[in-house]
Amino acid sequence: MIDSPQNSRIKEAAKLRQKKYRRKQGRLLVSGVHLVEEAERHGLIRTVFTLGRNRTDGVAISEAAMKRLTGMASPPDAAAVVKMPSPGRIGNRVLFLEHIQDPGNVGTLLRSALAFGFRDVVLDSCADPFSDKVLRATQGSIFALNLHETTVADFVANHPHTLIAATPRPEGTSTIPSEPLALILGNEGSGLSSLAAEQSDIRLHIPTEGVESLNVAVAGGILMFRVREALCEG
Amino acid sequence: MIDSPQNSRIKEAAKLRQKKYRRKQGRLLVSGVHLVEEAERHGLIRTVFTLGRNRTDGVAISEAAMKRLTGMASPPDAAAVVKMPSPGRIGNRVLFLEHIQDPGNVGTLLRSALAFGFRDVVLDSCADPFSDKVLRATQGSIFALNLHETTVADFVANHPHTLIAATPRPEGTSTIPSEPLALILGNEGSGLSSLAAEQSDIRLHIPTEGVESLNVAVAGGILMFRVREALCEG
Repeated sequence: MIDSPQNSRIKEAAKLRQKKYRRKQGRLLVSGVHLVEEAERHGLIRTVFTLGRNRTDGVAISEAAMKRLTGMASPPDAAAVVKMPSPGRIGNRVLFLEHIQDPGNVGTLLRSALAFGFRDVVLDSCADPFSDKVLRATQGSIFALNLHETTVADFVANHPHTLIAATPRPEGTSTIPSEPLALILGNEGSGLSSLAAEQSDIRLHIPTEGVESLNVAVAGGILMFRVREALCEG
Repeated sequence: MIDSPQNSRIKEAAKLRQKKYRRKQGRLLVSGVHLVEEAERHGLIRTVFTLGRNRTDGVAISEAAMKRLTGMASPPDAAAVVKMPSPGRIGNRVLFLEHIQDPGNVGTLLRSALAFGFRDVVLDSCADPFSDKVLRATQGSIFALNLHETTVADFVANHPHTLIAATPRPEGTSTIPSEPLALILGNEGSGLSSLAAEQSDIRLHIPTEGVESLNVAVAGGILMFRVREALCEG
């Protein structure tokens, strides 16, 4: 059992709470039993740390060490160092997130993406998907997704996908194209970049009243639901 | 100009960050220019505090006083004491939130409720809608809504609304009833209470794959979108 929060394995693993170490090592840290189990299910586990002797596998550590490892005031029962999943080739149903800053929004969008069969998610300058807040909001669905990083310009130049954007104006169409397609969502405050807006082939509108806009994770959920529904019917 | 964070008007208004004082005084505190403007638009303002002399109306206060008032590390340009809106009679398109705990979820659901014409929202043991985090997530839409507090048992006993619940199982119907109706959403972890599940007249299912559930604000957004769409077509 590791007692000391100053133990070198704890200190080394705790570094993975910082993006630069995650990038350098190709590993990440997940906190909480549910996320650890999801990472296990996808064969990504490197080391499991457990609070006291709750499990037979894994490294038993003290409460103080778990607090140091996870940075949480109330330490979870388990945490793990996990291999960063590798993305592979891009599929036919893509969610493209452009400059989405709120970790809760990014995580919730990843959770909905898996739910609606958008197995590939491209991120352009978003909140880091492997940060603790995003991981928690994904509820572990991140391990079943292929994540890619590229810009709109690069994506459009190299992929045949029909680009679908949401529009706040009612000039949109309601016809959903066939795959390959990519649904693109923009920043919480400023919306899509002008390049993304120009490059979009199809514009979908969600009729609303009384508000300037919907929350981006809600809008994304509704649009992915509609796309999935149209593809299933078509 | 009020310089001191210890000024009695500042200290008195800052108390409204606590639920018990909001309840006792029937007032709340909003932070940030956007929320202040939304409260103004609905005629609810009692006192506006502004950072330095940014505006001609309102009470100019120092940065230290604004920090004390709002509890924010980076003080906003404006904050205001606002009259708590009074609910009035319950309307025909109701969103019923049962034990929803996350302030972001409650706020996002209120924003979507206004967007889809659910002008009445009933809360049963949810995160306090007038807390700072909820207010921010509503983006001000809270001032255009009628908020009510009651239990499922009370609501069902006293209102003719058809109760619509989401179900994770595909036994649901896809037929949306006519108004009056109430869409009911349950707790993030445990879902609907058994009473609410029993009392529901219609069950709607959102087909998903790979996840245990959707985030409740996303599920609520999709269901409100569908209800609104059906009512507009019908």
